Amino acid sequence: MRKIHFSMLFLLGFFISSEIKAQNNDSVTIAAIYKEALTNNWSYKTLEKLCKEAPYRLAGSEASLKAVEIAFQKMLPIADTVYRQAVMAKHWVRGNKEIAEIISGHERRRIPALAIGGSVGTGKTGISGKLVEVKSFNELQQLGKKNVEGKIVFYNFPMNPLYMRPGKGYGEAGFQRTRGASEAARYGAIGTVVRSLSNIPEEYPHTGIMHYEDSVAKIPAITISTLEADNLSELLKKDPTTSFYYKTDCRTLPDVPSYNLIAEIRGSVHPEQVITVGGHIDSWDICEGAHDDGAGCVQSMEVLRLFKELKIKPKRTVRMVLFLDEETNQVGARKYASWVTERREKQYAAVESDAGGLMPAGMGCTTDSVRLTRFMELRKWFVPYKADQFIQGGGGVDIGFLRNTGEPMLSPNIDSQRYFEYHHSANDTFDKVSFRELQLGSAIMAGIIYLVDKRDTFE
Amino acid sequence: MRKIHFSMLFLLGFFISSEIKAQNNDSVTIAAIYKEALTNNWSYKTLEKLCKEAPYRLAGSEASLKAVEIAFQKMLPIADTVYRQAVMAKHWVRGNKEIAEIISGHERRRIPALAIGGSVGTGKTGISGKLVEVKSFNELQQLGKKNVEGKIVFYNFPMNPLYMRPGKGYGEAGFQRTRGASEAARYGAIGTVVRSLSNIPEEYPHTGIMHYEDSVAKIPAITISTLEADNLSELLKKDPTTSFYYKTDCRTLPDVPSYNLIAEIRGSVHPEQVITVGGHIDSWDICEGAHDDGAGCVQSMEVLRLFKELKIKPKRTVRMVLFLDEETNQVGARKYASWVTERREKQYAAVESDAGGLMPAGMGCTTDSVRLTRFMELRKWFVPYKADQFIQGGGGVDIGFLRNTGEPMLSPNIDSQRYFEYHHSANDTFDKVSFRELQLGSAIMAGIIYLVDKRDTFE
Repeated sequence: MRKIHFSMLFLLGFFISSEIKAQNNDSVTIAAIYKEALTNNWSYKTLEKLCKEAPYRLAGSEASLKAVEIAFQKMLPIADTVYRQAVMAKHWVRGNKEIAEIISGHERRRIPALAIGGSVGTGKTGISGKLVEVKSFNELQQLGKKNVEGKIVFYNFPMNPLYMRPGKGYGEAGFQRTRGASEAARYGAIGTVVRSLSNIPEEYPHTGIMHYEDSVAKIPAITISTLEADNLSELLKKDPTTSFYYKTDCRTLPDVPSYNLIAEIRGSVHPEQVITVGGHIDSWDICEGAHDDGAGCVQSMEVLRLFKELKIKPKRTVRMVLFLDEETNQVGARKYASWVTERREKQYAAVESDAGGLMPAGMGCTTDSVRLTRFMELRKWFVPYKADQFIQGGGGVDIGFLRNTGEPMLSPNIDSQRYFEYHHSANDTFDKVSFRELQLGSAIMAGIIYLVDKRDTFE
Repeated sequence: MRKIHFSMLFLLGFFISSEIKAQNNDSVTIAAIYKEALTNNWSYKTLEKLCKEAPYRLAGSEASLKAVEIAFQKMLPIADTVYRQAVMAKHWVRGNKEIAEIISGHERRRIPALAIGGSVGTGKTGISGKLVEVKSFNELQQLGKKNVEGKIVFYNFPMNPLYMRPGKGYGEAGFQRTRGASEAARYGAIGTVVRSLSNIPEEYPHTGIMHYEDSVAKIPAITISTLEADNLSELLKKDPTTSFYYKTDCRTLPDVPSYNLIAEIRGSVHPEQVITVGGHIDSWDICEGAHDDGAGCVQSMEVLRLFKELKIKPKRTVRMVLFLDEETNQVGARKYASWVTERREKQYAAVESDAGGLMPAGMGCTTDSVRLTRFMELRKWFVPYKADQFIQGGGGVDIGFLRNTGEPMLSPNIDSQRYFEYHHSANDTFDKVSFRELQLGSAIMAGIIYLVDKRDTFE
């Protein structure tokens, strides 16, 4: 017994010391990742290039092709494989700058406005009409056809500023932009003017996507700033005959060939198993797309650069995907998802960064309870970096299309307090991105991919 | 006994229900403060005005007087009393733009540089010399006079990028800027070139204050960007004969009359007791001073505006002080502290915001353990606003001079992750301030002042 006892102790000791050693090694690697991320400006400079040389890169645009080319060239020296995956992109264009005017008595005042993405244009003469202000579809229904027909519906439901998770307010207020036009057309409205989806009082409008229903007339939709929406609402109280004029030149052109950009570091043990990490290469057509989602693109690129620079050899293939067209029709994400399904690839995990290059408090993950428990244990490695707020729930619009593969979906747990000051507006520029916040995001993404791969967390 | 029992229960019930009612009222008031702060852009617009109409407002400058005037006019409709408190300001000026060149072999390369605040100038011909790179005063001592005399000392100690509380790195690296010149002069150096105090790799330099010792020669000091410091260090490894040329025109002029700006809402119960809330009105002479400390100024102004707008009548006098000259000699803070001492005013509490208009996680407080415990209990009111990380330790440079009054010192507990990307550099501009982050700071400052006053927390 004594001998067995000793050898068991020895074995136990061996396992414990191996585990401690592995943990120490992992701590050292995570520290190296953070140090390299926080002292090298490769991805920050890449973001600057993307923002300055390929702004306004909506899917289908020349700029979006330029952006794919920039990322391609940047990844060539880093990845084992870099390739473009062909997709057919929808091609909505804004055309000439919008004209919008508030008309009250003899006064006409021009205000900033943006056509909502996907909207039809007004035609050359524009449209004008009396306004009906509503805060909900219910209100619209109660007003009915007799009060709405021939008028312009003014949607003015504010994002709740008291939500400390602004995304909740965005979710609640989104209906007026995405579905407001068709809902108003049902009652005979000739157009819609929509309060911008923002939670601050400001002078510039925010665009975004909308969708028409097939069964009703397609009427043109524009958006105005939160302050102008407040002004207009006040004015309507004083003068209910206030009317509105706008002219938009936007239209949808034929689809154009475009690309997802893919770059891989091949796995050393299970090359057939794939960890996808990505953001979307397109942006709205009125901004540099720095936070949305240039940041997510360069963070994903940086994950591969960090692995290469620090000679980290992942067991599984780490595949960076810059998805085309998250903003309008997600043709890139759909293509990627169907492609991996056709290939019957084993998807081990997917990570998406599309909540801005803002301060990460930790990571979020959507998966089953067994894997989630193992994932949560990884938070301890991020305590030194104040990034240990790991939460249930992660993912993103683009990797969301992979959902039926059953793989865990991850995303940084971001402090999104100021995100909607930039989102879909001309204010989303490179100078609004903090180097450290961006790179703390890159570091936690690289760190978590390193750990879940090395420790087989999701097996 | 039965009667007593009942009346005791009754009394107890009365006290409990009063307390619950008071707590509910307080919740309602705090919510009203947050709502007003997050939907009104008065202080954000005031910050814009301060940054755009009075940038470069170093103490002694015309711009600093303009800034005091702007704040004066803004506070007139809000406060019960507004007045200027006279101080004599030191007056250091940068003069003509700096010239700095790295000379290696036949190559001369001009790089961005800033004279360090308080430094003497080089004279019209500038100075040039071989470089000695050091990371500490110890290293300088070991090199000794024989290796340093007649040379330019290049201080190159980086702020540790792995500190998630960047202020710690700033504290560690500060010696080279504040005391480096006199220490180098001790060994016969003719000048110093200092790595900027920043924790990111970037192309622009950061200035700040320095002080000379009386016993040694005053030699001119400039600062270069972190990336240029890295470049220069690399170059010195390849070519130890690399030399440096720089010309600065800075000098100290005679003191000029200037002001602190003070505005008060008079207390309704204890007008003789004072809660001071403030920031500093001066900024460095090469930036708009948006985060440092325009943000702290308008947050302090906003505290009074919120009280006025929401008809909150504090029991004690709430006095906003915009201190002159935090950046160089703190003449404003010294004057204010000696003034309240002379008047033997009861200082109930002091709040300072001088860590940037960045996301507040809660409040910090320096006081005795009894008051601290009561202060910590207030955190519960800020849970709905994700601002309940109350910590021991608060204050600031300006209210620090009040320390001998024994009053509690408070300041927002800020996420300062990106602060040193702006600090003392041309990058500290209005567009880097987030409306929501700024106003969440205003709201917590107003909220805590409301609570500590109403509930006599610090009695």
